[in-house]
Amino acid sequence: MLCAVFCRNMLKNVSREALKSASESQLQTLCADIREEILHTVSRNGGHLASNLGAVEITVALHRAFDFPRDKIVFDVGHQCYAHKLLSGRAERFDTLRKSGGLSGFPKRAESEYDCYGTGHAGTAISAALGIAKARDLKGEDYSVVAFVGDGSFQNGLIYEALNSLEILRSNILVLLNDNGMSISPTVGGMHELLSEMEREQEEERRDNKDIALFERFGLQYAGICNGNDLSDCLNSLARARELLKKGSVLLHVRTRKGQGYAFSENAPDRTHGVSPDGARPREEYSKALGEELCKMAQKDKRIVAVTAAMTDSLGLRPFFDQFPERAFDVGICEEHACVLSAALAAEGMKPYYAIYSTFLQRAFDEIMHDVCGQNLPVTFCIDRAGITGADGETHQGIFDLSYLSLIPNLVIAIPSSIAEFREMLHLSAKSDVPFAIRYPREGRGNILETHKIGTENSIEIGKWHIMHSNTSDIIVIVAGERALSIAQNVRKRVNKSGKDFTIVNARFLKPLDEKMLTKLGQKYIVTIEDNLLAGGLGDAVARFYRNSAKEIYSFGYRDCFIPQGGVDELMNEYGIDEEKIAELIEELYARG
Amino acid sequence: MLCAVFCRNMLKNVSREALKSASESQLQTLCADIREEILHTVSRNGGHLASNLGAVEITVALHRAFDFPRDKIVFDVGHQCYAHKLLSGRAERFDTLRKSGGLSGFPKRAESEYDCYGTGHAGTAISAALGIAKARDLKGEDYSVVAFVGDGSFQNGLIYEALNSLEILRSNILVLLNDNGMSISPTVGGMHELLSEMEREQEEERRDNKDIALFERFGLQYAGICNGNDLSDCLNSLARARELLKKGSVLLHVRTRKGQGYAFSENAPDRTHGVSPDGARPREEYSKALGEELCKMAQKDKRIVAVTAAMTDSLGLRPFFDQFPERAFDVGICEEHACVLSAALAAEGMKPYYAIYSTFLQRAFDEIMHDVCGQNLPVTFCIDRAGITGADGETHQGIFDLSYLSLIPNLVIAIPSSIAEFREMLHLSAKSDVPFAIRYPREGRGNILETHKIGTENSIEIGKWHIMHSNTSDIIVIVAGERALSIAQNVRKRVNKSGKDFTIVNARFLKPLDEKMLTKLGQKYIVTIEDNLLAGGLGDAVARFYRNSAKEIYSFGYRDCFIPQGGVDELMNEYGIDEEKIAELIEELYARG
Repeated sequence: MLCAVFCRNMLKNVSREALKSASESQLQTLCADIREEILHTVSRNGGHLASNLGAVEITVALHRAFDFPRDKIVFDVGHQCYAHKLLSGRAERFDTLRKSGGLSGFPKRAESEYDCYGTGHAGTAISAALGIAKARDLKGEDYSVVAFVGDGSFQNGLIYEALNSLEILRSNILVLLNDNGMSISPTVGGMHELLSEMEREQEEERRDNKDIALFERFGLQYAGICNGNDLSDCLNSLARARELLKKGSVLLHVRTRKGQGYAFSENAPDRTHGVSPDGARPREEYSKALGEELCKMAQKDKRIVAVTAAMTDSLGLRPFFDQFPERAFDVGICEEHACVLSAALAAEGMKPYYAIYSTFLQRAFDEIMHDVCGQNLPVTFCIDRAGITGADGETHQGIFDLSYLSLIPNLVIAIPSSIAEFREMLHLSAKSDVPFAIRYPREGRGNILETHKIGTENSIEIGKWHIMHSNTSDIIVIVAGERALSIAQNVRKRVNKSGKDFTIVNARFLKPLDEKMLTKLGQKYIVTIEDNLLAGGLGDAVARFYRNSAKEIYSFGYRDCFIPQGGVDELMNEYGIDEEKIAELIEELYARG
Repeated sequence: MLCAVFCRNMLKNVSREALKSASESQLQTLCADIREEILHTVSRNGGHLASNLGAVEITVALHRAFDFPRDKIVFDVGHQCYAHKLLSGRAERFDTLRKSGGLSGFPKRAESEYDCYGTGHAGTAISAALGIAKARDLKGEDYSVVAFVGDGSFQNGLIYEALNSLEILRSNILVLLNDNGMSISPTVGGMHELLSEMEREQEEERRDNKDIALFERFGLQYAGICNGNDLSDCLNSLARARELLKKGSVLLHVRTRKGQGYAFSENAPDRTHGVSPDGARPREEYSKALGEELCKMAQKDKRIVAVTAAMTDSLGLRPFFDQFPERAFDVGICEEHACVLSAALAAEGMKPYYAIYSTFLQRAFDEIMHDVCGQNLPVTFCIDRAGITGADGETHQGIFDLSYLSLIPNLVIAIPSSIAEFREMLHLSAKSDVPFAIRYPREGRGNILETHKIGTENSIEIGKWHIMHSNTSDIIVIVAGERALSIAQNVRKRVNKSGKDFTIVNARFLKPLDEKMLTKLGQKYIVTIEDNLLAGGLGDAVARFYRNSAKEIYSFGYRDCFIPQGGVDELMNEYGIDEEKIAELIEELYARG
């Protein structure tokens, strides 16, 4: 790998003017530099590797063909925006990528005028590009708007809704379909088939090209297929697309190779889609437990099926997909469809496990409410990456789920405090006949003693909490989940040093609340801790139960804001769950008596 | 109109066997009876008229061709399920349609085994049908599954997500596209163009039919177009479709006429989509004020644009669409796309007013969070039909919005207590530069004195509450919105009779809370009233502010359940806002002193 400083210096000197006047061979060199810089930084900071490596040439060509930031570009999701960042005055700060206070891994309006619209979740780019183009037309301005969309996002319903409204809005945009055959998992479904067929037709120089009619019917002029890793093909294709753009909206189909230029990534694009920094590996993985346990359960229970929206590997479902291919469904980046599909499978007697990241489940809010809970159907939501997730920033923190789920009637909300508990909760959900959500972070803390063994008397029951440490003090700390428990344990160690103590309750279920236990608790001071927004979570639920009682309730969770990127522990601490402050409060309450 | 009793008696005797053996002319008579019964009942009970009138013949044909409930049918949204209800043992109870405890206006699992999957919001039917078909195949069972989908729903992204996964799931279903050219407003967009073109091609007997390729690429065999109001064409087409279904999934394109058989409805299908019972007209309409005020504002402020998802008339936007066609966007039933589009328009300096029903806004939860509030863009959400809506039941109550919106950072949440306040809030949002939600019910109570005049000293400021009645008692009632205020006023009249009184505060903003006022309030007893779920609303926010203070807080709002159909006042009373109970509490608090 070339020296990073050298690369950055090269990039640093790439002005807009230089980019416009550079020879094609100079641009080739620039592409190589960008690729090196991405590899170098991602290997240190973590980030989205394969998708960004695949998009280097087409991005350089876009910067040559268009006049950003006067022209506008919206990146769908944003897993392919690194080259754009490097070419828009951010090369010098690129080593801060995904670090606290550094460059975001996604486009962000606050970061640069070159990022006209922030993204993070799939499918928004064409809608956003249309809104920008419409504003342009209403204001009588004149510039080009590009939506840069991966084929994975093309599975998402939002894309279709936007395509459907091209005829209504009639403001010209260029849709650049970055087709690398992958979302995070390989792209699946009818649209993927259609795109592949279009490519075959083009290769065979067939001119009947029926599939293009779809896009044309939606009001898109089809500008053909280009090799997105061939700079000169990109430049020619974009020139052609710009001409067509004068007459109406345009689709340019760009074929790229995920991981291009880095053999390891080319060969394993799904495993190098998102990578952790060198040496940083999760300690305990809930996702691994999910895969193992579901496989065990499915061997005995034929009703069990798994559903995912393009996240098979990162959710730990690969073993299930391998062992039970007939009962495993990856429907692509379609969180809503996956939810309705799960509800209907449950309506006909199956036991669907719909695994998803906390932040992406937000997309299915209405379907969780009506299709699953409104019909009281036994779908189990396995909600991974709950709580602070860290380096991906605002759009990926899983800090809202306890709040928006707890307002939905009929839903059981379980929060394991260890992987052993998580396993048992999975079994419990299979036995129960109600909508069931289990939320857990990516990785365990590793310092939690397993709190029980499956099948012992300390078995988990729906709505039943567990007293973990009991003592005679007048202070009780109620925790939701392993991270909160870990913090409570650390606080306990601190206050133990000065001879103080408190009781810890493991609130295994946010819903139903253990009202029986709450009724019995004799302590005057109640402290709640949760890795979630303060509003609408465990603290509010406990406070609502004790409304107008003599109890004093102190809650720790995240304050009302979007939490930016940073380290998990650092963010937890900064945004509301500060061990030191909790210890101080306990000391103070202890002193009050 | 024929005698309803006669019609019901005819229908009552239609057994499954009779339906199978009836002559075509007998079926024609049955269709006429069904149409009469729908007209008769809807004119008394209110309901969805035009869509149901259009679907009579095709539904009779479906019941002849398939063997329900062994075969399964999923109605998208459910605005066309009345004939199905009448043919599946519910004719005798049909006069209870949309009444408290009566038949639902939508398919409902709890109501009949013929309703295998409940619906209410658009776009779920193909996903649900696929889930049912997949469960069937996994269990080795053998029956047919039909998704009955209006062309309006075909604009929704969920439909596309489901079509995209036909190739993945490979379980055969029949998709029946009920194409009447309308959603609630006329159908718009590229898919509508495509369907129209397919129809023209068929009429002209052109055989090149490029558009069919789209559906074929998604794995649907195209069974042609049939006249859905011609019984014999329906029967023949369904026979053809059943044959094709043996080989794979099928699309049957059924052309129907909304309002068929009722001239008034045929001529005004948009105004007879949903009708109120005879003589029942809303008293004061917020929607009317919305249209008027937006027009006034738009004349002076060129930045103002209006966005809707297929609800132009019922939201009161017709005058705006007429006067400012260039700045008015109906994107079809695409709540998410409409939200992202609004965010992008705001990103480029426009002031979008996105008007929508409370219940449908749930679909855009993630986009409100990320696209609008995450980027702090000045989109104004005009949230109509908030609170209890009544006869449409569980899937249409607007009782969750205060809860799920209040957990989203950066969002201003305004709750007008009169139409005058609503008008001023609209002006205020135009002047402000932040995400802004205004939520209001369909109709005003009519007994509220206007609490202020626009432009007076009592002007509305973001986050500032208003003391409406002040007195020396130790009780204060904080209300969110006109309905809650009306209840507080009624309670006040009651307790005034025994010489008691309390202060009333108009909580014009749920977010930001008026912390200045809350800090100053001296009363010991605080009662909150809101036309919303108890969890996560005004009561919880006030209680969180006063946590561990000496204040006692009593909150009235809806308990944790889905609220069924019924009268608005009756449901408010039954599910948590009971004037009598509030008055009793006040008397008790007064006695306590």
